Amino acid sequence: MRVTFLGTGAAGGVPLYGCACPACRRAQAEPAFVRRPACVLIENGATRLLLDAGLMDLAERFPPASLSAILLTHYHPDHVQGLFHLRWGVGQAIPVFAPPDSAGCADLHKHPGVLSFQRAKKFVPLRLGSLTISPLPLIHSKPTWGYAVQNDEGERFAYLTDTLGLPDATERFLKTWGKFELALDCTFPPNSPPANHNDWHTALASINAVGPTRTWLTHIGHQFDHWLLQTAPAIPSGIRVARDGQVVMLGG
Amino acid sequence: MRVTFLGTGAAGGVPLYGCACPACRRAQAEPAFVRRPACVLIENGATRLLLDAGLMDLAERFPPASLSAILLTHYHPDHVQGLFHLRWGVGQAIPVFAPPDSAGCADLHKHPGVLSFQRAKKFVPLRLGSLTISPLPLIHSKPTWGYAVQNDEGERFAYLTDTLGLPDATERFLKTWGKFELALDCTFPPNSPPANHNDWHTALASINAVGPTRTWLTHIGHQFDHWLLQTAPAIPSGIRVARDGQVVMLGG
Repeated sequence: MRVTFLGTGAAGGVPLYGCACPACRRAQAEPAFVRRPACVLIENGATRLLLDAGLMDLAERFPPASLSAILLTHYHPDHVQGLFHLRWGVGQAIPVFAPPDSAGCADLHKHPGVLSFQRAKKFVPLRLGSLTISPLPLIHSKPTWGYAVQNDEGERFAYLTDTLGLPDATERFLKTWGKFELALDCTFPPNSPPANHNDWHTALASINAVGPTRTWLTHIGHQFDHWLLQTAPAIPSGIRVARDGQVVMLGG
Repeated sequence: MRVTFLGTGAAGGVPLYGCACPACRRAQAEPAFVRRPACVLIENGATRLLLDAGLMDLAERFPPASLSAILLTHYHPDHVQGLFHLRWGVGQAIPVFAPPDSAGCADLHKHPGVLSFQRAKKFVPLRLGSLTISPLPLIHSKPTWGYAVQNDEGERFAYLTDTLGLPDATERFLKTWGKFELALDCTFPPNSPPANHNDWHTALASINAVGPTRTWLTHIGHQFDHWLLQTAPAIPSGIRVARDGQVVMLGG
C-alpha cells in the first residue's frame, strides 16, 4: 500500500495569506515548505482512494476514472472545496463516502453532479477494490470520521484528522487492530487553547494511547511550523512531520 | 479603466471534467480555450476591484493589499469558492460587497476571517477609490447583483452575470446611464431550456434592450463553445465572445 500526502496543511495552509512569520516566509521562498489542504492518496494495486478533497486542482490531478472513490473526513470547506468544481463533470460517477451530515457543505448534496454520495456506518467496514476501510469517529466541530485502511496483505494505515483527542471507541478499535501506521492531526504547537484540533501534547497523548508503529503528523498550521523552526524540539522516534508530496510505502 | 477577464466560464468551466465534446477536447489541447470561473479585475489608477471570487488561486494572484475590494454577484460556489482559502489570512481586511443573502455560502459569514463583509443597497452608488459602482439586481436562482462601474472620466462598464434576462428597473437604469460597455451572461447556445442563465437569444434580447457600445459575452458553458465551433454563427457587430486573460481598455 502506498500513501501520498498531497496536502498536509491546516485551513489556510502555509504560507497563510498575508502572514510574515518565519514559517510562512520560508514557505513563500521555498515551495518544498508549502502546505496545501490536508489530504492523502492511497494506492493499492488498481485501487486508488482520495481521502479528503480540499485541493482545488482535482480535475487536473485525477483524470476521469482514475479514482476508485473519495472518502471525506467531514464537510468543512478546506476538506471538500475541490468538489465544487469537479462535480459539474460528466460520465462515470465517483463514489463519495462521508460521515452522516445532512447539512453537507453549501449545495453539494443538492447538486451532486458526477459525485455519488454513499451511505456508510461508523466501524462497519467498507470494501473498495482491494482495500477494506473502517470509518472511525473523531472529535471535531462537525461530524467527522477518520479511516482505518487495510489491504489483504495486512498492511494497515489510519488517517485521523480533523480531531482533538480520540473517542474511547476509536481508541479501542485501534488498540486491537494489529500493527499500523498513523497520520494524525497536529494543527497547533504545545499548550495552544483547545480549538477542535490537536496540539503537540494532545497528539502525543493519542499516539501513546493507540501505539502505531510509525506516525505522520499532518493538518499542520503555520504556528506549529513556526514552533518547530524556533525550538527544534526533540521528536520521539517513530514520529515524523509529514510534508506535501511525501510518499510512504507501507510494509516497505 | 482597464478590465481583465480572469475567467469567462460557467460552473464547471471548459473543459468540463470528463467531457469529450469538441469544445472540451479543444480546451484540453490548447490552454487558450480554457474557461475558468467567470470574474473580472477592474483597474482604474490605484483602484483595483475583483468582481467575483471563483478562482482558487486568489492568494497567488493578489498579494495582500493589492485589492481595493471584492464585489460578489452572488453566493453560488463557482463565484465565491476562492474565498474559502483566502479568508484565513491575517493583516489588512479586504472589504467584500455582495447582495443581501443571509445564507451566504457554507460558513463564509460565520468565519469571515480577513474578509470584511459590507452592506450595500441596490441602485445606491458606492464609492471605492476612484470608481463609482451601482449594484443592479439580476434574475437568477439566488439573490444576484450586476455592477455598473464608472470612473470620473465618464468611462462606464456594466458586469451582468449570472442572469436570465434583466429586471425592468435594471434595464431602465442602463438605458439612461450614458455610453457603456457590457459584459453579459451567455451560458447556453440558442433555444436552451431556461435555466437561470441567458442563452444566445435571451442575451441578444437584453443587449438590444439596453444598447451598450460593445458587449463581451461571458459565463460561457461548453455547449455554447461547441455551438460556436459547429455553426460559426454570424455574430452582430459590437458583440464579442470574451476569453480568459482578455484585456479591455475602456475609452481606448
